[in-house]
Amino acid sequence: MKLPSGFTAASCAAGLKSSGALDLTLILNNGPKFDAAAVYTSNQVVAAPVIWSKQVTKEKIVRAAILNSGGANACTGPQGFADTHRTAEHVGEVLGISSGEVVVCSTGLIGELLPMEKIISGIDQISIALSTDSLQDVASAIMTTDSVSKIANFKNDHFEISGVAKGAGMLAPALATMLSVVMTDALLPDNAQEIFQRVCDRTYNRIDSDGCTSTNDTVLLMGSGASGFAPSEPELESALMEICGSLSQQLIADAEGSTKTVAIEIKNAASESDAVEVARACARNNLLKCAIFGGDPNWGRVLAAVGTARAHLNPLDIDVTLNGVQVARSSAPFEDRNKVSFENRLVTIEVDLKVGSSNATVFTNDLSHDYVHENSAYAT
Amino acid sequence: MKLPSGFTAASCAAGLKSSGALDLTLILNNGPKFDAAAVYTSNQVVAAPVIWSKQVTKEKIVRAAILNSGGANACTGPQGFADTHRTAEHVGEVLGISSGEVVVCSTGLIGELLPMEKIISGIDQISIALSTDSLQDVASAIMTTDSVSKIANFKNDHFEISGVAKGAGMLAPALATMLSVVMTDALLPDNAQEIFQRVCDRTYNRIDSDGCTSTNDTVLLMGSGASGFAPSEPELESALMEICGSLSQQLIADAEGSTKTVAIEIKNAASESDAVEVARACARNNLLKCAIFGGDPNWGRVLAAVGTARAHLNPLDIDVTLNGVQVARSSAPFEDRNKVSFENRLVTIEVDLKVGSSNATVFTNDLSHDYVHENSAYAT
Repeated sequence: MKLPSGFTAASCAAGLKSSGALDLTLILNNGPKFDAAAVYTSNQVVAAPVIWSKQVTKEKIVRAAILNSGGANACTGPQGFADTHRTAEHVGEVLGISSGEVVVCSTGLIGELLPMEKIISGIDQISIALSTDSLQDVASAIMTTDSVSKIANFKNDHFEISGVAKGAGMLAPALATMLSVVMTDALLPDNAQEIFQRVCDRTYNRIDSDGCTSTNDTVLLMGSGASGFAPSEPELESALMEICGSLSQQLIADAEGSTKTVAIEIKNAASESDAVEVARACARNNLLKCAIFGGDPNWGRVLAAVGTARAHLNPLDIDVTLNGVQVARSSAPFEDRNKVSFENRLVTIEVDLKVGSSNATVFTNDLSHDYVHENSAYAT
Repeated sequence: MKLPSGFTAASCAAGLKSSGALDLTLILNNGPKFDAAAVYTSNQVVAAPVIWSKQVTKEKIVRAAILNSGGANACTGPQGFADTHRTAEHVGEVLGISSGEVVVCSTGLIGELLPMEKIISGIDQISIALSTDSLQDVASAIMTTDSVSKIANFKNDHFEISGVAKGAGMLAPALATMLSVVMTDALLPDNAQEIFQRVCDRTYNRIDSDGCTSTNDTVLLMGSGASGFAPSEPELESALMEICGSLSQQLIADAEGSTKTVAIEIKNAASESDAVEVARACARNNLLKCAIFGGDPNWGRVLAAVGTARAHLNPLDIDVTLNGVQVARSSAPFEDRNKVSFENRLVTIEVDLKVGSSNATVFTNDLSHDYVHENSAYAT
């Protein structure tokens, strides 16, 4: 699979993953433009590569991104930051660019130093193997416990966008983190950061597999301008929504241990932020998520979760519809809960708050035996 | 086991539980005082008995409490409220007291109406069987999925307190709710509500088994004044702390599906509320709770959880001690994580924030296969 014009990349198995799979990837933007925007984890405790890359993207110029799986380089102290710095310096040297224009992303176990010699020799290896035909390998090299790689493409007559992502919201074990790189040959407008933040808020920030916020989450947008085309803002935003929306859905579909994808649709909230707050309260309610795993139409858990949200509610007048069956009207039993079918992977929970006209949907997963199993036996 | 002087009670199997176990209990305060204080769930969606009882306890006079298991009477609409009202009215009639002085508590599945004929005939039966020797039955009748009943007693030369509780924080299935009644023969001061709120904030509100807030939680304090003794405020508060602290520990020890009790001790926070906020962020982090279930000393999950708290932190200077082993110093690896033993039920996580001098401990449980199992198969 080809990268958008202006980009080259290469990946290798540097030996960070004991499996011998691809674990290091380098993306180079060959220009003529080096536009960038980025969104990072909201966690106060952040990994060394996040501290570094935040500084880099502040200038909105990124020439290269180096990403590794097999280690998060989080909670690793001054040595961890020195390692990130050294990684960027080395990429800068071998490519003849400034290290201050190199984004670094890491993903894997927290609290362990990276094996730097492996990373340095991996960089040497891939920096001379850069090609335009390497999108699939980029997507593979950033996988941790993902069962499939995640790629999305957009193309019209004027420009194209390709995106990759790894992780499953924050559900992947040990907070192995969500990483995503979106590349386009379009010319990006001055307010690309603002547009990209808005897109991320409505895509990546609307998936919430387990409520756990990672130390490493990074979403990076790189624009080469190689198409010479400047899309209008709505055109760009819509294309980015398509890419990031697709990648988000791929993440939630592959969430660890999950047997269901759950769409929580909040309707008629007083504000969009209220709608998101209510949806998130449901997405983070373990009892509700266990019920969905068990195929149990226990709608009382929906209302109990809704009631914990810091949002404007009329507690006695809420409707709940589970997979098309209106099980509660005005916060009391309505249609027979036994009519609800849980045959499909997708479960839709509609909550009508009837206090306004704002809507939002958050996607989550069920809470399964496998989630507990996979997350209780990762580091040891 | 005897009730404090001034109190009588009786319990029966009214037929609400299919098991035929005790499921209805009536507590009568015979005075001479009828002092009361109460604390309720913070959920916006509350059960009919909570709406009723909040009105009753506003007046700070409670003569009787009727409690049932086998049904929460939550999300049951106007009929549910009428049923609660009828329950209080009937207790008032048979005891010759005002229904406005009768607290009603219900616990069990949400979204189902109570079988009122069974409750009415149960009330008839127990109202003529009231005795002073019935504390154990009161504790048994409010159990849902509890494996043991929870009772605590305090006695000195002047007054005594007995308390019962059911549930396991909010961990019991279907939000089967936490209920607790604390009875004393002491004369309660005018600010009993304030004292009781403070005690609850530092006991019941510091256990958080699964982050799920119920629709029915009620903690009721009843004072008969039969001892004729008015303890000083510190003396009363200290005795109540002992009772409510003991009941809280009994709840967390019996939390559904749990294999570990986890004490999360936050030290040197900027404020007590910051300390509680950080502790709660850990207590609600599924990845951390899975790691503890697996006996995995994955301290990175502690710091990642701490970083999500809305509290003043110095993210690069936090110490973490797991069961006595200081696995992280200044947010970086310190002692070998493999030294940590998970042999005992109690797991202690100490987090030193080093930004102030306030401390707080929140108790939680691990997230286990059995938690998922028991909560995915309750209603069906």
